[in-house]
Amino acid sequence: MEVWKEYQQKNKDRFLEELLALLRIPSVSAKSEHKPDMAACAEAVKQRLLEAGADKAEIHATAGHPVVYAEKMIDPAKPTVLVYGHYDVQPAEPLELWNSGPFEPVIIGGKIFARGSCDDKGQFYMHVKALETLIKTNTLENNIKFCIEGEEEVGSPNLAKFVKANKALLKADCVLISDSAMISLDTPSLDIGLRGLSYIELEVTGPNRDLHSGVYGGAVANPITILAKMIASLHDENNHITIPGFYNDVLESPAEERKLMAQAPFNEQEYKDDLGIKELWGEKGYSTNERTGIRPTLELNGIWGGYTGEGAKTVLPSKAFAKISARLVPNQSSEKITDILIKHLEKIAPPYVTVKATLHHGGEPYITPINSAAYKAAAKAMETTFGKTPIPVRGGGSIPICSLFEKELDCKVVLMGFGLDSDNLHSPNEKFDVANFYKGIETIPYFHKFFAKEG
Amino acid sequence: MEVWKEYQQKNKDRFLEELLALLRIPSVSAKSEHKPDMAACAEAVKQRLLEAGADKAEIHATAGHPVVYAEKMIDPAKPTVLVYGHYDVQPAEPLELWNSGPFEPVIIGGKIFARGSCDDKGQFYMHVKALETLIKTNTLENNIKFCIEGEEEVGSPNLAKFVKANKALLKADCVLISDSAMISLDTPSLDIGLRGLSYIELEVTGPNRDLHSGVYGGAVANPITILAKMIASLHDENNHITIPGFYNDVLESPAEERKLMAQAPFNEQEYKDDLGIKELWGEKGYSTNERTGIRPTLELNGIWGGYTGEGAKTVLPSKAFAKISARLVPNQSSEKITDILIKHLEKIAPPYVTVKATLHHGGEPYITPINSAAYKAAAKAMETTFGKTPIPVRGGGSIPICSLFEKELDCKVVLMGFGLDSDNLHSPNEKFDVANFYKGIETIPYFHKFFAKEG
Repeated sequence: MEVWKEYQQKNKDRFLEELLALLRIPSVSAKSEHKPDMAACAEAVKQRLLEAGADKAEIHATAGHPVVYAEKMIDPAKPTVLVYGHYDVQPAEPLELWNSGPFEPVIIGGKIFARGSCDDKGQFYMHVKALETLIKTNTLENNIKFCIEGEEEVGSPNLAKFVKANKALLKADCVLISDSAMISLDTPSLDIGLRGLSYIELEVTGPNRDLHSGVYGGAVANPITILAKMIASLHDENNHITIPGFYNDVLESPAEERKLMAQAPFNEQEYKDDLGIKELWGEKGYSTNERTGIRPTLELNGIWGGYTGEGAKTVLPSKAFAKISARLVPNQSSEKITDILIKHLEKIAPPYVTVKATLHHGGEPYITPINSAAYKAAAKAMETTFGKTPIPVRGGGSIPICSLFEKELDCKVVLMGFGLDSDNLHSPNEKFDVANFYKGIETIPYFHKFFAKEG
Repeated sequence: MEVWKEYQQKNKDRFLEELLALLRIPSVSAKSEHKPDMAACAEAVKQRLLEAGADKAEIHATAGHPVVYAEKMIDPAKPTVLVYGHYDVQPAEPLELWNSGPFEPVIIGGKIFARGSCDDKGQFYMHVKALETLIKTNTLENNIKFCIEGEEEVGSPNLAKFVKANKALLKADCVLISDSAMISLDTPSLDIGLRGLSYIELEVTGPNRDLHSGVYGGAVANPITILAKMIASLHDENNHITIPGFYNDVLESPAEERKLMAQAPFNEQEYKDDLGIKELWGEKGYSTNERTGIRPTLELNGIWGGYTGEGAKTVLPSKAFAKISARLVPNQSSEKITDILIKHLEKIAPPYVTVKATLHHGGEPYITPINSAAYKAAAKAMETTFGKTPIPVRGGGSIPICSLFEKELDCKVVLMGFGLDSDNLHSPNEKFDVANFYKGIETIPYFHKFFAKEG
C-alpha cells in the first residue's frame, strides 16, 4: 500500500524516538523497587495508544502490575484483532557485562541496544505504530484491541484473573502477538508452537549457621556439595532428564515432522562460533533444533551459596540455593511437572540437609494450527513484505498466556515475531534491529487488511 | 600471683572497653574498600602496645597490609617469647544473619558479639593486657616481642617476606599464638597440630554471553549444570575425595593415636543439636573428631552463577563460579595439592566449557611436639589457672604461619587458644566469652614466668 509506505517513511524517525523514550523507563517487573517505574511505563503506553488514535485507553489495576487496555472499534460486526504484548522487562543484571546502560538506549550499527528493545517493548510498539498508520491513512477495515500487560516476565500471575473478569471487553476473533523471533530478515518464519514452563527455587539447608570450614569441614554436610550432587543427578550420561515420569506425557514428534524440521536452514559451525563454544551439548538422539523445539528441557537459571565476594573466606555455609526451570512440550502439564519436580528434589535430598522447593511460575505449552484464518493472514502479510512464504517453526521459549487466551476467548493465537534468536533476550546487550522494527510496522497493517477480509 | 590478680581485677573493665574499641574498626583484609580501616587498626594496635609498656612499637609496611611489631626487652640473655596474632578479620557477610552490627560490639549473656571478637582481636589483645600486667607489676622476667599482622585471613601473602627480612628483629626462643580454640573452660586443651590449606577459585565458562534458556536451553551446555557435575564428582559414595593422588602423602595416624583421640569428650547428639542437623556426614571409616582432625577434606566455600536476585529470570548463564578449599594433614604439601586439584579440575572439564582455576592461598599443615620447653610452660600455665592438665588436640583449622616461624626462626610454636569451637568464627554472630578473655589474661603471665625459668 503506497499510502502506508509514504506515511511510515515520513514518520519513521519519530516512531524510533518514541520507542527509545519507552526503553528509558526501567520497567523491571521482578523487582519491587521498580514499582513506580512500572506505573510510569503503563501510563506512557496508554498515552501513546491514545495519540496513535485509539478511541479509548485505560489502565486496569491488578493485584500486581497494571494492564493497559485500548481499542479502536470501527464496527462491531467486523472482525476484531486483539494485540497482546508486555511492557515489563527482565532484570538487567549482570550490569557489568553491558556495553551501555540497559535503560539508556543507543543505536549502533543499525541495532537498538537496551533492555526490552526486542522483548517486548520494541515488538509491541510496532503494533501501536501500525494502528497509527491505519488510522491516520483512513485504511482501517477491522477492529483492533490492545492488551499490554506488565507481568509477563514474572509469569503473568494476575493476567488469568483479568482476562476471565473482562471477557466481553477482550472479545476478539484472533489474538496477535509479536514476542518471539523469526529465522532472519531473509527467512521469515511464524511460530506454531511454544514450550511451557515450570520454574522453581530450591533452598538446601545444612547446619543452622555458617561454619568455619576448618573446624567443621569433613564432618558436616556442605549444602553446596549436596546441592551440586542433586543437580548433577538430574541429567544422565546421555543428557536425558532422570526425574521419574518427566517424559511420560511427551508426544513424540512423528518422523515426518522431524524430517521437515531437519530441512530448516541451520549451520552448526556458525551457531557454535556465534556462542563461542567448541562443542554442542544436549539430549542424545536429537538435533539442535529438536532439542530447543520439540524436547522438554531442564535448566539451571541461577545458583548461589556461601561466600561469593572478593578474596577467600573459609566458610562451610548454612544454605545453598538454585533457580531451576523446565521447558515443556505439548501435552505436558506445567502443574504436573512442577509437582513431580518438587517431589523428586525432596525425595533425593539426603538426610544431612533439609530442602524447600517453591514454585516461581509456570505456563502451559502451546501449538497452533497452520490452517486458521489468522495464521493464513499472517503468512500472507509476511509474503507480501518479505517476498517469501514464512516457515512454520516451533519456538523454544514460552508465552504462557497463549493457552489462556485460546481457552478464555475461544479464538486462535498468531505468533508473528520480528525479533532474532541472536537479540540477547534476557541477557546483557539486548538489541533489536531498526530494520526489523520497521519491517514489523510495514507488515502488520497487511495482517489486519487480510484478516479483515478472511477473518 | 596475688599481685597480678589484684592489678587485673582493678583494671578489668578498662581491658574490656579497650577491646571493644578495637572491634569497632572494620579491619576486613579481603576487601580493598577497607584499606583505610586496616591502616587505622594497625595504628591503634601500635598505640595500645606502647601504652601497655612496650619499649618500642612500629608499623612495618608490606606489599599488602602492614605488620605491627613491638617489643619489651629486659635482658638479651634471658629467654624471648614472640607473640604472633592478627588484627585483620574475615568479611562479615552475610550481614542479614547478624543479630547486631558486626562492628558494633555488644555484650549479651557474658559474650562479646562482634566480627574478630575471638578471631583474633580478642585473643591477641589478651597478650597485650598480659604484657601490661607483667610490666605494671614489675614482674617481667623474660623478653616479649609482638608480631601482629594484617593479612592472616587472606593467607598471609606478605608475611614470609617480612619474617625473612627481619630475622634478627624477630629472633625468639618460642612463638606463642592464641588464635585457636580449647575444648571448654572446664576442659582446657592445647593444639598440637593444625591442618594446611589449598584454596582455589574455579570459573566455568559456557557460551560467550548469557542466553535465553528457552531459546538455547537443551542445546548448549549450562555452566551451572557442568560445574555441579564437576563438584559432585569430587567425593565418592563413601565421601572419599576422588582426586587421583590426593591422599598419596597422608600419613595414616597409628591405631594408638586414634584410640587416644576417641577418649576425648564428644557427645554426638549435642553436636548435632547445636548445629541443627539430623545426620552427620563424612568420610567412611573415620569418627567426627578424626574427620576434622587427622583427615584431609575438600569443601565448597562459595558458589554463584546466573540470576540470583528476587523473582525469576529464564537465563542460561555464560559463567558459573566456585570457591573450593582443601584442608591438609601433616606430610601433605599445599603446593602439590593445589597443583593436582587445579590439574584435576581442568582434566574433568568437558569440552562444552572452558575452565580457569586460580590459587587464592595456601598453607602447610603443622604438628608440634609436646615435650618442648614452650609446650611444657603452656601446659603448666593452664594447669595453674584451670586446675587441670590441658589435653593435647589436633585442630581442624589452619594457621599457615606456624611452619614459617619454625623454619625461619628455628624455634617451637605453641598454640594456646582460649576460644571455643562454638564461637562462630568466620560466621555471623562471632562471639568471645568475656570469661575466656579474662582467663587468657590471667593465664598468659604464668606462661612467661614458667618459660623464663625453663625456656
